[in-house]
Amino acid sequence: MTGFELLATDGAARYGRLRTAHGGVETPAFMPVATAGTVKAMMPEAVVAAGAQMILANTYHLMLRPGAERVRRQGGLHRFMGWSRPILTDSGGFQVMSLKALRDIDDDGVTFRSHIDGSRHRLTPERSIEIQRDLGADISMVLDECIAWPCSVDAAAAAMRRSTAWAERSKAAFEHRAGHGLFAIVQGSVFADLRQESAAALADIGFDGYAIGGLAVGEGQARMFAVLEATVPGLPTDRPRYLMGVGKPADLVGAVLRGVDMFDCVIPTRSGRTAQAFTRHGALNLRNARHAEDGRPLDGRCLCPACRTYSRAYLHHLAKAGEILGAMLLTAHNVTYYQDLMADLRDAIQTGTLGAFATQFAAREMRGDLAPL
Amino acid sequence: MTGFELLATDGAARYGRLRTAHGGVETPAFMPVATAGTVKAMMPEAVVAAGAQMILANTYHLMLRPGAERVRRQGGLHRFMGWSRPILTDSGGFQVMSLKALRDIDDDGVTFRSHIDGSRHRLTPERSIEIQRDLGADISMVLDECIAWPCSVDAAAAAMRRSTAWAERSKAAFEHRAGHGLFAIVQGSVFADLRQESAAALADIGFDGYAIGGLAVGEGQARMFAVLEATVPGLPTDRPRYLMGVGKPADLVGAVLRGVDMFDCVIPTRSGRTAQAFTRHGALNLRNARHAEDGRPLDGRCLCPACRTYSRAYLHHLAKAGEILGAMLLTAHNVTYYQDLMADLRDAIQTGTLGAFATQFAAREMRGDLAPL
Repeated sequence: MTGFELLATDGAARYGRLRTAHGGVETPAFMPVATAGTVKAMMPEAVVAAGAQMILANTYHLMLRPGAERVRRQGGLHRFMGWSRPILTDSGGFQVMSLKALRDIDDDGVTFRSHIDGSRHRLTPERSIEIQRDLGADISMVLDECIAWPCSVDAAAAAMRRSTAWAERSKAAFEHRAGHGLFAIVQGSVFADLRQESAAALADIGFDGYAIGGLAVGEGQARMFAVLEATVPGLPTDRPRYLMGVGKPADLVGAVLRGVDMFDCVIPTRSGRTAQAFTRHGALNLRNARHAEDGRPLDGRCLCPACRTYSRAYLHHLAKAGEILGAMLLTAHNVTYYQDLMADLRDAIQTGTLGAFATQFAAREMRGDLAPL
Repeated sequence: MTGFELLATDGAARYGRLRTAHGGVETPAFMPVATAGTVKAMMPEAVVAAGAQMILANTYHLMLRPGAERVRRQGGLHRFMGWSRPILTDSGGFQVMSLKALRDIDDDGVTFRSHIDGSRHRLTPERSIEIQRDLGADISMVLDECIAWPCSVDAAAAAMRRSTAWAERSKAAFEHRAGHGLFAIVQGSVFADLRQESAAALADIGFDGYAIGGLAVGEGQARMFAVLEATVPGLPTDRPRYLMGVGKPADLVGAVLRGVDMFDCVIPTRSGRTAQAFTRHGALNLRNARHAEDGRPLDGRCLCPACRTYSRAYLHHLAKAGEILGAMLLTAHNVTYYQDLMADLRDAIQTGTLGAFATQFAAREMRGDLAPL
């Protein structure tokens, strides 16, 4: 099991510390996504330099390529990818469920075809746990059924109850070792009573942490926050809460205000590969011609490799020319921005100033090239 | 002007030191190519860490995007791209001449259409020098006419004589400042008497260095070495000799044996983006399935970021998955390999052991995945 200490609170928001076999993680924490065993366009040492304490890797991608057994034979994912800090792996469920035409789900598990070569695979709660153990995850996730949004209350209830049964099987299959944790996933779409039922059932089973799944699938920020407000109070206070696949900077601030401790999302890395930069003055699109002669750094307060050395004019040039260095620098910047934001949130919680921070944050967000995020 | 000291010789091979406004360069030296103001897939600090002392940037690409005047307004190419060591810029001639259907050459210069947006541009010897000054080059190259191979002796003679006239105009247009040099380019295709005529004419005009152009265009290594043997003895011994656009590792060893001091080529960087790695055991194709379970580094004697941390199995995985990190690591490795090779050549010249080094090198090259390079 993994440890969790709750060290300070500010309203519903929490500052804490998660302990794993590969070290500690201060929360609230944001995990950059290493989909296929690499945080895209970043060396692992740059991910550390950006301040990331933990990353997420995807079971679905790694089971297909290079294969979990191959990763195990190479000494596990930490060694394979040169990352010595904690790793959380998802269960594969979310990606498999997204393969609408290629998968077939039943009470035992899900059968699907690889998007790479069309080969058939089977994922069950037990097999997902086995794969995550082969990968060497510090934190494993239970297999769950994520349904698309919008959905009926009956469909959401059925998927949530199947997920609860799978969570119980996942716990039974999980090999409990010091520093290795298993997190459950609350489901129930946008229906408050289903979310509460899910949270209570999972808390009864007992896990090292509780994720909130099935959000950021198109329901919008207001519904997402409403789900958090309905769900978080039903989760054990002595365990971390993890909002999966979220989100934009304002989503993180709002979720922390509502008691969430952990996040993952591809937005900072994917945006870095599409010429978008998050800054303390709002988000910038570096392809925009107004940056072509701008000698300023992206963000004068940022200490990332992009801001230390390069002008917006150079980053604009790299973006227009489609240069890999543009993706490298903007990804490093965005991951740094997200980590700095989490550090600011942790500081604000510890000093009891989170409300003021959130107000300032919302005002700053309005100033960029792009719609407020 | 730039300085050049000849410090040791071993047969025709030379160990020397070039002095520029941005510092010294030990020769023989290999310049990684920063086509559009970035050594593709590498941070400048990684290029330095790989041992590169000087890079090449392309006038053609930079004049079109972002434009030489824009680079000048941003403080010059060194500042724009975050590179504080010497930069050599080519004249734009080679790339423009390659745009067969899009360019029109006359005795005054060449008119061409941009491959990016079809816009019309004019390059003359004087304009090329102006652009290179705007970029802030430590070493500028004269505009020359590179003709395709194979070609008739008459066509080669006409292009060579036009290039000589342009070299004279380039020298007249060049602003002579301490640490800033202008190199001429010997032409004449594979015809020894034309090469000798070109070398003698350029040496009479007088330049800070002498390049050998128009090679590595399909004529093959044997013809290229024959041209070097016919050309190099006609070049001043007190100036560096630069073989443009060359080459594979064995080309570099052979050219150093024949008295060449400087090189540039996209092979190490381009190969890094296509899953090829140069090693002391020959070249490897990381896509090859035989690397899938290989826990060894690419090259146990290499200190690059790829070899320090990662297995061939991981690099194979990155190559198969098309991950940017694969391009980053293999590029860093290949640039390091090229720099290590140049350092080995410099050491061998200084210790008078170049012949033995070249023999061992040829034997090692036979062992890779790929045809001997």
